[in-house]
Formats: sequence, C-alpha cells, structure tokens
Amino acid sequence: MLYAVIMAGGAGTRFWPASRAALPKQLLALAGERTMLQETWDRLQGLTPVERILVVTNRALTSRVAQQLPDLPAAAILGEPCKRDTGPCTGLAAAWIARRDPDATLLMLPADHVIRQQAAFRTAVEHAVGLVHADPTRIVTFGIRPDYAAESFGYIQRGAPLPGGSADLPTFHARSFREKPTAEVARDYLATGDYYWNSGIFVWKAATILDALASREPEMFTHLERIAAAADSDRFPQVLDREFTAIAGKSIDYAVLEHYDNRVVIESPFDWDDAGSWQAMTRLHGTDDQGNTVIGGRHLGLDSTGCVVHGNPRHLVVTLGVRDCIVVQTPDATLVANKHDEEAVRQVVQQLKDRGWEAYL
Amino acid sequence: MLYAVIMAGGAGTRFWPASRAALPKQLLALAGERTMLQETWDRLQGLTPVERILVVTNRALTSRVAQQLPDLPAAAILGEPCKRDTGPCTGLAAAWIARRDPDATLLMLPADHVIRQQAAFRTAVEHAVGLVHADPTRIVTFGIRPDYAAESFGYIQRGAPLPGGSADLPTFHARSFREKPTAEVARDYLATGDYYWNSGIFVWKAATILDALASREPEMFTHLERIAAAADSDRFPQVLDREFTAIAGKSIDYAVLEHYDNRVVIESPFDWDDAGSWQAMTRLHGTDDQGNTVIGGRHLGLDSTGCVVHGNPRHLVVTLGVRDCIVVQTPDATLVANKHDEEAVRQVVQQLKDRGWEAYL
Repeated sequence: MLYAVIMAGGAGTRFWPASRAALPKQLLALAGERTMLQETWDRLQGLTPVERILVVTNRALTSRVAQQLPDLPAAAILGEPCKRDTGPCTGLAAAWIARRDPDATLLMLPADHVIRQQAAFRTAVEHAVGLVHADPTRIVTFGIRPDYAAESFGYIQRGAPLPGGSADLPTFHARSFREKPTAEVARDYLATGDYYWNSGIFVWKAATILDALASREPEMFTHLERIAAAADSDRFPQVLDREFTAIAGKSIDYAVLEHYDNRVVIESPFDWDDAGSWQAMTRLHGTDDQGNTVIGGRHLGLDSTGCVVHGNPRHLVVTLGVRDCIVVQTPDATLVANKHDEEAVRQVVQQLKDRGWEAYL
Repeated sequence: MLYAVIMAGGAGTRFWPASRAALPKQLLALAGERTMLQETWDRLQGLTPVERILVVTNRALTSRVAQQLPDLPAAAILGEPCKRDTGPCTGLAAAWIARRDPDATLLMLPADHVIRQQAAFRTAVEHAVGLVHADPTRIVTFGIRPDYAAESFGYIQRGAPLPGGSADLPTFHARSFREKPTAEVARDYLATGDYYWNSGIFVWKAATILDALASREPEMFTHLERIAAAADSDRFPQVLDREFTAIAGKSIDYAVLEHYDNRVVIESPFDWDDAGSWQAMTRLHGTDDQGNTVIGGRHLGLDSTGCVVHGNPRHLVVTLGVRDCIVVQTPDATLVANKHDEEAVRQVVQQLKDRGWEAYL
C-alpha cells in the first residue's frame, strides 16, 4: 500500500519577514491561493487516502499544520523536537509507518515545492510505485531537467535506461548523487546532459530505508527503533524527545542515497519549482507590465522595474526609481533588499538573534 | 507692538507617506522631538506673548493645530477655506491684526522651517523690529547665505549696506527679489556673492502690507477688507468662505515684495533649513556609522549606506545591499524611493488621486 509522507520541517529564513520561525515558507501562500503545505496535500488526492498520509514537521509547527490540514488526524502529525536534517526525519517516518504496515511503500515529498501539473505528477508517482513493486529494494527518485547551472540543488547523474521505461516517462539507473556543486561544476553537469536536479521526492519501501539505515547508520537506526517502539505508550513524548535529540544530524542523501546501489531516476514529466527565493517568485507569478512581481499586496510603481513586492492588499507599497529590489512588508517588520543580495537575508536573521530582537524572528 | 503670524498651511506632499493631506510636514516631528509647528511656537518665547500670536492654516488642519498648540486660543487660528498662495494669507493676517491694532508690527514666519539657534533668531528679529520702528514703511527680510546653487528657493539680491547695521547683523538695502532660478542662474547668483536665499521670514507693519495691497492688488484688498469687517459677526464663516475663495491666488513675493521700494535684508545670524526634502533630513539628523539617517524608526542595515529611513520605534526596517534609498514606513503605506528621484514623490500623490486611492493621501 502507498503512504505519503509530507516533510514540512523547513525553517524558511530566506523569506523573512514574510516567513518567521513560527510561520515558515511551507505554511505561507507564496505561490498560490493556498499554502504550500495545503497544495502539497491537494497533490495527493487520488494517490493516497487521508488515513495514509503522515506529516513530519518541527514540534513548534504542529498546531499550525493541524489548522491548515483540518482533515488530517492529530496522530498523523509528527513533531520533531529539534532539527536533525532529512536522514532522521525520513527514518522516523519509515519506522512509524512500518510499525503499522511492514510492507508499506512510501512517497516522500517536501511541503515547500511547487508543482502545478497534478495529473503528470500522479502518473509519475504511479509509475514509480510500479517500479518499486517490481523490485522492492529499489529507491526511485525524480530528476528535474536543469534549466541553468544551479548551485543550490543536489544533482542526480543518470546511467543506462531502465527496461520498461516509456517515452513519456524516461527512466534510468541513477549513477550517482551529487551534493550542491560549485558554479563551475554545475556548468560541467549541464554540458554533459546526463544530470538532473534532485527534486527531493522519492518512492521506496519503508523496509528498504530501514534496512539501509540499520546497516549504514546503526546508531541512528537504534534511536529510531526506540521511538517507534514507544509509539503507543504514555512515555512517547519523552522518548521522542530524548532519542531524537540524541541522533546525529545527517541528510538522507549522505546517509543512504549516495551509497545505495539499486537506484532509479525518473525524468520528471511535471513542472517543479523549489520556490526557494524571492527571485523564484518572479518565475512563479510572472511580472506585470512594468516588470515587477507583486504577491498579495497593493503596489504602485513609478520608474521601477525588476522588483518583487510582497505585502497585504490593504497596505500600499510605492516604489519610485528603484530597480531589482525586494520589498517585503509585514505589520511589524519591513525588508528592502537588493535582489542580487538575496542570499544574505539569512544574515539578517542571524543579526536579529545577535541583537536579541527575537520578537521579529 | 509685535505680533507673530505663523503660516502653517503647507501641504507637504514631498514627505508622503509620512505626511498626509490631514497631517502635513509642519505637523510632524521630522526634525526634532516636537513638531515643526510646535518648534516654531517655541521659537517665539521671549519675542511675543501668547495673546499676540496668530496661526493661519488651512481649514482642514485647524483642529490638529489646536491640539498641538494647547495654549493658543481657538480664535487665534484662522483656517483658510482653500489654497490661495502666500499673498492672501499674508494680507488676511495683516487685516485681521490691524482691526485690533492698526499700528501692529508683524513677524511672519513659516511653520515648516528648522532654526536651532534660538537666541540668534531672537536677536535678529529684535533688530528687524528696530528697523521697522525707525522707518515704519520698511519691509525687513532675512537672507540666508547660500551653501549651494539651490533651485528650490527664491533669492534676495542685496544692495548698499544700511547705515546702522552691525558686524553681527549685516544689513543691506534689498535690491531685488528673484523667484526660484534655473541651476545656471543660481550658479551665477552664487558667483556674485550678492544673493541670499529668501528665508520667507519677514517683519513689517500690518499697515505697510495693507497699503501695498490696496494700491497693487485692489481686488484682493477688497475681499480681505470684507473678511476683516465680518470678523465679529455670526456670518464670519460664510463671509470668509465666499470672499477668500473669490481671491485670485498670488504669492506675496509677486504681489508686493518684487515691486516694493523700501526693502531691507538682514543677513541671517541663525542657522536655517527649509527641511524641504528627505535629503534635508540627512543634514538635520546626521548619519549613523553606516552613513544612514534614521528618523523615529528601528533600522538594521546590512551593506546599506546613504539611506534615509523613517518609521516608528516598534516596526523594524531592514535594508540589505541598498544605496541612497528612502524608506518611509507607515501603518497603511510604505514608500521605497531612490534618493535621487525624490522630487517625483509629488507624482506619487498625483497618481494616488488619479487612481481614486484617496485613503492613502
């Protein structure tokens, strides 16, 4: 049976001050009418019933997640007590579901990506599920044809075509997984034509991941087993707290994917955007006739272009004679940033911590 | 006896959105702890008692003026029903005061200029009053030594020194009054060394101005006489409305000063700033160690310099990688402007009118 695991623990500091510690990107409607988490939920319609969906998030966000997904039972929201990267998150979900269904197949998907072509997404997932059913030890990944030499994504190198792939869903052995490359390396990847962006969406058996962790990450595996064993006990919150905190943080790529043999990559037939920056918002929302992107705000631009404005419909943002500027307006904080310095928004968040201005985080 | 007339009718669209139609610059604390109107009021201490101060403003602002100047009797606030430039305003004040004291000497002063050297200001005014008492038909003006070839001020050309001037208060016949010049002409003015900026502060007899208006602007004079004659009547509001509206707008410079013979200019011994732009705020407030000017707000700048930030202490404005930017944050509107395009803020106000977004005006 197919289960879906929505990974919704991201901090989203890049979108400060629209995103906050208590309201990260996946809980915002940055890309559409509904929040990214809700759109991820919607994407599962027709793939898995509600009772086979699990959301892993961080503990501080569980009530917000419950608010945004009113059909999801509270017991299907796992709140991590601390950040430990994607390895423990993935392993926890696998252990949790395997307890109930040892033969479970999992669709892992981040809550903060944008995919608009729902039918193509479902077709691709069903294809992946078929591949896992045909060979239960397979790890199936989705590769995105790169548009440019991005430094902010991991890459998947494809190998030989997999028998049984189709023209609609080109499928390959995955030859290697690469962490975020330098610009130069990324350009080389692009030149070969053999590399995909790693979408972070996976299909695999819970047992496959647990076996891989048991052999490669025995300590992590032991902690995860203890958590799963306490699932129905009153002591569960304390056990989760203690055992999860004791795990050394590691990405699932590093813990498993990079070393695993039986890996497959499907060339994604759906659009995909990680919506990872304000600049991505220009891709997602397009621009008005002055070349500005306005998200949820009221904007008047005079001699202004290339700007991204985020606000609310009752607050007027006026830009005058400015180029390539990000303006994010919220009730208690406003950011005015050069679009080319967007990466440094993380530094803003750090400086707020340093100054003790936590109220704005 | 010396009376003071504070001219507080300015619209202050340049400071939008900090200034609004209902809250123009003179009613804001842009330059100090108190509003410019209040600082103008404070400046009169020791020169005229409260009962000899008159404020002329526009009708929509009278209650705000009364709030800000609680010691001023309501009857000493004249609200113009419409904008008619400085000629009718000046004439109305003269007619109003002459009714009570035909021999009154008036100190006319704009409510939206910044003068910090109060003692020097008082000394200069007392000198001016002495000059008017010595020759009651004199018009005495205050000239500011120009720092640069400003296009935004009127100029006063000095003539021969006036007998009785001192080294501390150089005093001259005023040879000519010039409207705002082009940059080229302003540079020529500066090169001669004979031109002052016109501070807009004057000392004269009420009778002098009324006589000058009677002879050069008989229609304006007739309307003003009708208003003054109705001062104690129940019909006063209607008479003011009808007669003032019927006056053709004209500046006092054009109506009187440019043509008058017996004019004197005192070289101002006090600092003076018209606080006419956000850039002026940098002069008045100085800059922090990053080169930014922060007025009434909380600011965090990363790789930002040359910015002017106006807000309130609870709202955090972050600038990142921006140069020479004006950020004005208010609860319902935010302006992000290139400092070099500041003049165009007037266009913003016009566009708001065109779009029917009067709520933000």
